[in-house]
Amino acid sequence: MENRSLQFWYEFASTYSYVASARIQRVAGAANVELDWRAFLLGPIFAEQGWKDSPFNLYPAKGRYMWRDMERLCEAEDLPLVRPSQFPRNGLLAARVALLAEAEGWVAELTPTVFRANFAEDRDISVWETIAEILVDLGRDAEAIYEQALAPTNKDALKARTEEAASLGIFGAPSFVVGKELFWGNDRLEAALAWAGRADVD
Amino acid sequence: MENRSLQFWYEFASTYSYVASARIQRVAGAANVELDWRAFLLGPIFAEQGWKDSPFNLYPAKGRYMWRDMERLCEAEDLPLVRPSQFPRNGLLAARVALLAEAEGWVAELTPTVFRANFAEDRDISVWETIAEILVDLGRDAEAIYEQALAPTNKDALKARTEEAASLGIFGAPSFVVGKELFWGNDRLEAALAWAGRADVD
Repeated sequence: MENRSLQFWYEFASTYSYVASARIQRVAGAANVELDWRAFLLGPIFAEQGWKDSPFNLYPAKGRYMWRDMERLCEAEDLPLVRPSQFPRNGLLAARVALLAEAEGWVAELTPTVFRANFAEDRDISVWETIAEILVDLGRDAEAIYEQALAPTNKDALKARTEEAASLGIFGAPSFVVGKELFWGNDRLEAALAWAGRADVD
Repeated sequence: MENRSLQFWYEFASTYSYVASARIQRVAGAANVELDWRAFLLGPIFAEQGWKDSPFNLYPAKGRYMWRDMERLCEAEDLPLVRPSQFPRNGLLAARVALLAEAEGWVAELTPTVFRANFAEDRDISVWETIAEILVDLGRDAEAIYEQALAPTNKDALKARTEEAASLGIFGAPSFVVGKELFWGNDRLEAALAWAGRADVD
């Protein structure tokens, strides 16, 4: 029996999604698990919980801990980290572009690059100029993508995606879905990959 | 240089503290790290954040996930889990007794037993009858302990302990403190133990 694939649900404003995005291709490849990249928006899900900001801003002790934890994780992963001058940065535009990239098969290049821009280069990924620079660097037609990204069908697709996240029980990012199992947090990636290799479950 | 010791901060109502309590002596022993057991109360810390209940009750998607995650973790650890008929159960009485047990050197026996009563046997650890049964099973003088546990000095000691937790930046349980470093969550225990073995930090 083949390993099942793993859905990687991420939000571009999420710090721990950055860490996951930087290592997921390596560890999924080693585990022989296929990846299904799934950009979504946490904002609407947090809003349902009554949060109008990142919980790391709403709960300062949790926020202070998270940034120190990120420093340790990134040091261990040999990953650059520059605390963004603005947090969280709105990931709407990047997520819309990611949905196009999924359909066209270049999301695995796009997503880690956007995360790096936000969390290692302190670039403002909420504005089109930054996304356009990234697209040009990746050899893509930024102008054409801009039109497609803002087309109503693509906007609707992202809304549907975010509703799908909620319906799967997703409440944070990154999350991983394998079959019917949900795993939350960069630190659950290994458990999710192990689940994908289990032969005894749906 | 010797490994530094690790402070294990736990709350008796906390599910992930149960998992940590069941494995910490084994993994700390293997890492040659001395344990400092630190019972505290999360209630006052949650109240500061505006929460009057467990976040797993306040945020249902997070709660559903947590119970499933606990099932998987306990299966992997070969640990019994019976979802308590009441959650969270007030850990005040148990924490007061744990403080006495710390001072007298039997907290490493007491704490895992209380957690098991709550999360593997669905016994009501919030009431004295249950705590007394546990103490008798451990060969302790329950009546004498009852008086000591409710003495003003011991009540004050638990208040001071919980204030110390907040001053260390603790916002959840289990937490681990090694020198000046804080680690949050059962899944950070290995990182905390590795930190205790580092020679290059205070």
